[in-house]
Amino acid sequence: MVKPSVVYTEIRKVKGTDIAQTDDTLAAEEPLEIRIEYGPGGERQQKSISITMRTPGNDAELAAGFLFSEGIIGSKDEIDNIFHLNYGCQEGNGDNIIIAALAEGVQPDIARLERHFYTSSSCGVCGKASIGAIKTITSNTRAADHMQVPAALLYSLPVMLRDAQDIFGDTGGLHASAIFDIDGNIIILREDVGRHNALDKVLGYLLNNQLQDIGNQILLLSGRASFELIQKAAMAGINIVAAVGAPSSLAVSLAKEFDITLIGFLRDQRFNIYSGEKRIII
Amino acid sequence: MVKPSVVYTEIRKVKGTDIAQTDDTLAAEEPLEIRIEYGPGGERQQKSISITMRTPGNDAELAAGFLFSEGIIGSKDEIDNIFHLNYGCQEGNGDNIIIAALAEGVQPDIARLERHFYTSSSCGVCGKASIGAIKTITSNTRAADHMQVPAALLYSLPVMLRDAQDIFGDTGGLHASAIFDIDGNIIILREDVGRHNALDKVLGYLLNNQLQDIGNQILLLSGRASFELIQKAAMAGINIVAAVGAPSSLAVSLAKEFDITLIGFLRDQRFNIYSGEKRIII
Repeated sequence: MVKPSVVYTEIRKVKGTDIAQTDDTLAAEEPLEIRIEYGPGGERQQKSISITMRTPGNDAELAAGFLFSEGIIGSKDEIDNIFHLNYGCQEGNGDNIIIAALAEGVQPDIARLERHFYTSSSCGVCGKASIGAIKTITSNTRAADHMQVPAALLYSLPVMLRDAQDIFGDTGGLHASAIFDIDGNIIILREDVGRHNALDKVLGYLLNNQLQDIGNQILLLSGRASFELIQKAAMAGINIVAAVGAPSSLAVSLAKEFDITLIGFLRDQRFNIYSGEKRIII
Repeated sequence: MVKPSVVYTEIRKVKGTDIAQTDDTLAAEEPLEIRIEYGPGGERQQKSISITMRTPGNDAELAAGFLFSEGIIGSKDEIDNIFHLNYGCQEGNGDNIIIAALAEGVQPDIARLERHFYTSSSCGVCGKASIGAIKTITSNTRAADHMQVPAALLYSLPVMLRDAQDIFGDTGGLHASAIFDIDGNIIILREDVGRHNALDKVLGYLLNNQLQDIGNQILLLSGRASFELIQKAAMAGINIVAAVGAPSSLAVSLAKEFDITLIGFLRDQRFNIYSGEKRIII
């Protein structure tokens, strides 16, 4: 079964003071592990060389392009075939593991691979397993809350974020994360070329200052909401996440799982509620 | 020396049929390696746990926030101090390595770290070392070219990209990469939640089809141009990269190093030329 590239979900669409229930389409986001199989016949080995959060579809192209653009292969002739691991995998996630079988005689430079590939953020291959792992870690830190924010307050946040973005104004090239209190005051804003880094900087600041208030504050993201960002928000005990851009499918799943209010497309006096409607006052 | 968050560069600003030389500000992008130091006094060990491409500034917050949001520490008391490795590092890149010394008695779950952190793309800690590594690999594949494109053709590309984006129209949440030929025909377009994945899918497709023409084609990116994307373009032998968004500092450095034409902010009948002006006809 090929995984879908989009996922359908039910949302609340808010515009001004109106709210309506509607269906919405999310970009699917799931992890893909890329493995190479190499060595002489009878002694074939597998090595995992990358795990990336991707939109399912064209996985074989993704694997081939990755091997080529990272210098692991030099031409298509060095790959015999590329196939999903559709068996022997718990919870049917073989579709999230793809194996490129290198032609016999093609010997990848394993030492270089290990030297040059770097770790990025945490994740399991299986979205479900990841959500489970986060749940275990955060279960002690999340408490019930009665936080609520009016739509009018949410409408005001993107403008304040943009005004406060020091570096973006000059470069046009940075993601921002910011924490606002329930009255709409900005507590902390950080910018970075990486959206996960901007959020980590915010959390690092709060860790040294006033993390105890975070359950009653709002996290605003300048761009899209990916799995990784909601994961970090969950770990920190954030209850409301608002993004100027779109959320991914896995971001919405995780927000629902952790009872986080997730707002997307917050701009021009409108937004979508993907999860946790109870905390929004229209 | 604290690394700057922005980098100044000289560009050509093109609007309609006008071109002007001007200074521009880029968001700095450099790798940061995060290490933890742990264990009892006298037996302290260091372990590298993440390398991320980040905008320099607030590095200690970034490291603390990362450790917290990934569940490696639970409170600020578990960190004794955080400091850059400013010595013993070639080419003065100690500012790109930061060490979080955990308090004595704090024992990180190293096995979990190794299980849960995943590799993303290739890179060395030092931008220069990375550029060198790419140079070694690509030196045989890049040939001199005489490719030139008119500004008017570039202006037409973003509209074609948007019209051709299947999934984006529905979700609003995807990055796209596309290859156009010199007459402005779209050869291949791919979308993904990860911008590097969209490009890898494009390269994977071309690898199976007509990669030999790539030196005379144009790569269009729907968003920002990061180091990683220019690296992949260089590996594939692409000569012209145009981005709808901003390039990072390291993307511009790499484009100059490889004589790649790099266009940014391509929208509304204007664009900036960051590198390789010779291939653009105004």
